[in-house]
Amino acid sequence: MKTSQLLIPTLRDDPGEAETVSHRLMLRAGMIRKTAAGIYTYLPLGLRVIRKVETIIREEMNRAGAQELLMPIASPAELWKETGRWNYYGKELFRFKDRHERDFCLGPTHEEVITDLFRREVRSYRQLPLNFYQIQTKFRDEIRPRFGLMRGREFIMKDAYSFDLDEEGARASYQKMYDAYTRIFTRCGLTFRAVEADTGLIGGDVSHEFMVLAATGEATVVYTAEGTYAANLERAEVLPPTRVDDTPPQPLTAVTTPNCRTVEEVTSFLNISPHRLVKTLLYLADNEPVAVLIRGDHELNEVKLARLLGVTDIALADAATVSRLTNAPVGFAGPIGLSGIRIVADHAVSAMRNMVVGANQADTHYLNANWDRDFKVERFADLRNAQAGDPSPRGDGPLILAKGIEVGQVFLLGTKYSKSMNATILDAHGKERYAVMGCYGIGVGRTAAAAIEQHHDEKGIVWPYPIAPFHVHLVPVSQSARTVATAAHLYEVLTEGGIEVLWDDRDERAGVKFNDADLIGAPFQVVVGDKGLADGVIEVKIRRSGAKSRVAPADLVPHLRRLAEELA
Amino acid sequence: MKTSQLLIPTLRDDPGEAETVSHRLMLRAGMIRKTAAGIYTYLPLGLRVIRKVETIIREEMNRAGAQELLMPIASPAELWKETGRWNYYGKELFRFKDRHERDFCLGPTHEEVITDLFRREVRSYRQLPLNFYQIQTKFRDEIRPRFGLMRGREFIMKDAYSFDLDEEGARASYQKMYDAYTRIFTRCGLTFRAVEADTGLIGGDVSHEFMVLAATGEATVVYTAEGTYAANLERAEVLPPTRVDDTPPQPLTAVTTPNCRTVEEVTSFLNISPHRLVKTLLYLADNEPVAVLIRGDHELNEVKLARLLGVTDIALADAATVSRLTNAPVGFAGPIGLSGIRIVADHAVSAMRNMVVGANQADTHYLNANWDRDFKVERFADLRNAQAGDPSPRGDGPLILAKGIEVGQVFLLGTKYSKSMNATILDAHGKERYAVMGCYGIGVGRTAAAAIEQHHDEKGIVWPYPIAPFHVHLVPVSQSARTVATAAHLYEVLTEGGIEVLWDDRDERAGVKFNDADLIGAPFQVVVGDKGLADGVIEVKIRRSGAKSRVAPADLVPHLRRLAEELA
Repeated sequence: MKTSQLLIPTLRDDPGEAETVSHRLMLRAGMIRKTAAGIYTYLPLGLRVIRKVETIIREEMNRAGAQELLMPIASPAELWKETGRWNYYGKELFRFKDRHERDFCLGPTHEEVITDLFRREVRSYRQLPLNFYQIQTKFRDEIRPRFGLMRGREFIMKDAYSFDLDEEGARASYQKMYDAYTRIFTRCGLTFRAVEADTGLIGGDVSHEFMVLAATGEATVVYTAEGTYAANLERAEVLPPTRVDDTPPQPLTAVTTPNCRTVEEVTSFLNISPHRLVKTLLYLADNEPVAVLIRGDHELNEVKLARLLGVTDIALADAATVSRLTNAPVGFAGPIGLSGIRIVADHAVSAMRNMVVGANQADTHYLNANWDRDFKVERFADLRNAQAGDPSPRGDGPLILAKGIEVGQVFLLGTKYSKSMNATILDAHGKERYAVMGCYGIGVGRTAAAAIEQHHDEKGIVWPYPIAPFHVHLVPVSQSARTVATAAHLYEVLTEGGIEVLWDDRDERAGVKFNDADLIGAPFQVVVGDKGLADGVIEVKIRRSGAKSRVAPADLVPHLRRLAEELA
Repeated sequence: MKTSQLLIPTLRDDPGEAETVSHRLMLRAGMIRKTAAGIYTYLPLGLRVIRKVETIIREEMNRAGAQELLMPIASPAELWKETGRWNYYGKELFRFKDRHERDFCLGPTHEEVITDLFRREVRSYRQLPLNFYQIQTKFRDEIRPRFGLMRGREFIMKDAYSFDLDEEGARASYQKMYDAYTRIFTRCGLTFRAVEADTGLIGGDVSHEFMVLAATGEATVVYTAEGTYAANLERAEVLPPTRVDDTPPQPLTAVTTPNCRTVEEVTSFLNISPHRLVKTLLYLADNEPVAVLIRGDHELNEVKLARLLGVTDIALADAATVSRLTNAPVGFAGPIGLSGIRIVADHAVSAMRNMVVGANQADTHYLNANWDRDFKVERFADLRNAQAGDPSPRGDGPLILAKGIEVGQVFLLGTKYSKSMNATILDAHGKERYAVMGCYGIGVGRTAAAAIEQHHDEKGIVWPYPIAPFHVHLVPVSQSARTVATAAHLYEVLTEGGIEVLWDDRDERAGVKFNDADLIGAPFQVVVGDKGLADGVIEVKIRRSGAKSRVAPADLVPHLRRLAEELA
């Protein structure tokens, strides 16, 4: 297509609203524009990328035996009430009423709608397995939408739902999707890892996230260099310590620690290492207070804590609650003398002796606190985030931490939804059984954004060939009749050869055109100019490497095919 | 694809919820299922048809030089307030608030959003003309959603918006879209007419509707057999009468008409023809009462009345208001002695003498009423619906009335939106000018439904080839090894030949399979059975005509290609 016939409002400067590389580059390359917070218009270039990702997804979903349908965006409240998610989902659910005051939401996910369809239309085990997918616009009222398409409030997702007669069948369906996702992200040209993940608001037993590795990612991926273990930080297991401090217990001693509240303040005042200190964090778990003990150099993992306590709602206690529970200002909480509160502790604390803890008194800490002697711990458990160097739970080496962007997630749901919505099928013996489900999501816009986070340089985007908006950016560097005629000819030839061309037919300076071509990031640039034509050649530049080659116009198509194969 | 791998829940019986052919057949053929009133899930077969219509639309829009983008479904209220449509749109607009209490609507159309994009991103006349389109889900909270996809509350539409420097350019853009629409509906295999239409809630100066002719249509199309005139009923002009009744005025006479309220009752009681009577209809026009005089055998056209009075809100007065204005019960209103109310009349009334009118008194009418002598008419105008046989306003013969389904509409908007949203561009002299706009819509689901209304028989759907969910329904009539193997082979051969096949691989009786094939309506059925195979042939049935032919398996693909060409 010609740039004169496409709205591609490139920007020379970084827009103020953008915090991440992909957001900045999508705005600068004229791919998207904001319509409201977290709500975007896809301009022609952006939409082309979205459609390419969708096509890859569709091909691989079909190949895996899934069937495409399309469920509505407006989702009736009754279905959500059956599963309890009408309340459970909270403020992230966009809700509205129709003219008859009936409640609806804008679907953030479609377990309820598909399970309702299934229970109405499917009767027999002979119809199974079934896997339905759709590519549909979803909504989530994020408290802080940001990073462009990465965390929007209206976004395009592929979601799929499998139904099987039994757990074994469901595991096979899950594996098929896992494999399809692997093919999809590979075809999109992404470097990624599938990691074990928590199941969160969706629920279920087993889950994997597909993480695109990028320094700018918000999520943390935990894995081993050589082994098979990979999980996200929320999920990654930490083994109990194998070595226990065997120093004999010393007498408990209160010391004054004026204005020392943080780990940093206390340990530098006392001149001790943070791993000798134990933080006492006071939480409200479904509104019940609980004290959590974590070694000073470790981070609490709230997902693990919630799972241990069997609660859904967990939050740090506010200052007033802390004061009431400890009779002391925030910063001096400790386990000794805390009454009427459950105390749980991370495994690492079980290996500690003579630790430093808060004294539940302003400006005071205890030295030489010992559990069992000075205070009781109800339960030791894995409650902290993994750290680099921790041993892998599979015993396959030390853990590595890296940043990643979650682009897809698969869940083995089990019967959570089929039970609450009474979605049964008849088995071979004529007995009613709950369908065993799985669900599988891919963020389409997020995949495009993640590709940019992983593939860019200081000049702009460097698209992987399969999802580039165009394969070739055709740049005539003058308006001479010969150059324009050659460009027009090459445009025809390339298009006929099945190569998608963006022809910069504007009357602009060469520098402006080159900058835009680098910014937009088509894999190849074909430069046509009077000087080259006098020598009978045009120039081909590979966007990624910057490598240039000169070729006769007649050889262009085979030359590009060869280069594309080398790139793949 | 195989039926065993697709959810196609065909129904033997007519579902109670369906009132129209297309709704009934889409449900019965397993194409759609209702999720809520006016809100549907597209099952795999239905989605395939939707996608085919979309592809045809996309190809023709691109060919016409339009560029595809995608605007959000959630539309911020601020933009709608700029044009005044936040209030004007009323209850049809689904509204909601986000977690910060900001107002949004679910876009029923996107003039505001695209005009906002335009004013932010386009500066110069050199960038014009521009035409943006999207295929997006739209929402309209219909007071009475019905007829399946024909009048839904959530529906898929193609909408396009053109921007030009001047009226002449806008007319050229409009014509391009008119031509593209003509190609689109022709390619979809539909018989249709483009008719002049009113501009309604969208506004603007000129508009055409594209009407698929079908006896089941809700709209009325008015046109001439040989000529060029075509309009919808709302719009169709009626010329003033050329012959005037020249009987001399008779004396005004009151007569008793006990309990005679309707035209039917009064004229049969008085034994006169309805065209001697004048109905006096009392309306509230933006809350002001107005009396409208219409000949007894004519129908008032409310759109024309609203246009004449220059109001947006028009409704028949309620009984209490009628009694207050006329001092009589409903059914006896008349123009004589009505004080303080504007009186307007249809042109036909101007040609009448000695008419029968209500007397503003219970059970009483006047004979021999004459305007000017007995009452004053403020204005005579074209206020009635056209009737079959009326002369065409273009003088090209008598008007014909037919039923139609509106599948698309094009509007020449002018500067309505660019003015209210201050969307200007610089012309060649550096002067700011308001962009001149057009907008263009196609109901995608409605087009599919209209195709069924036009193409079906008592057994089911008869798809036009270009939008059929599959080209061939492959029906093996036994489960013998030979039949199954041949079916499998033909499936491969056809698929490789680019022919889309639905292979009924179920273990069902032949009758069940034939019924489903007729219901689903693929253009061709290929029947494989042991008996035919013994003779070396398979059977091909053309769904539309029922014509059958026998062909050797090796000749199937060329045979089908030939038949498809004949069908086109």
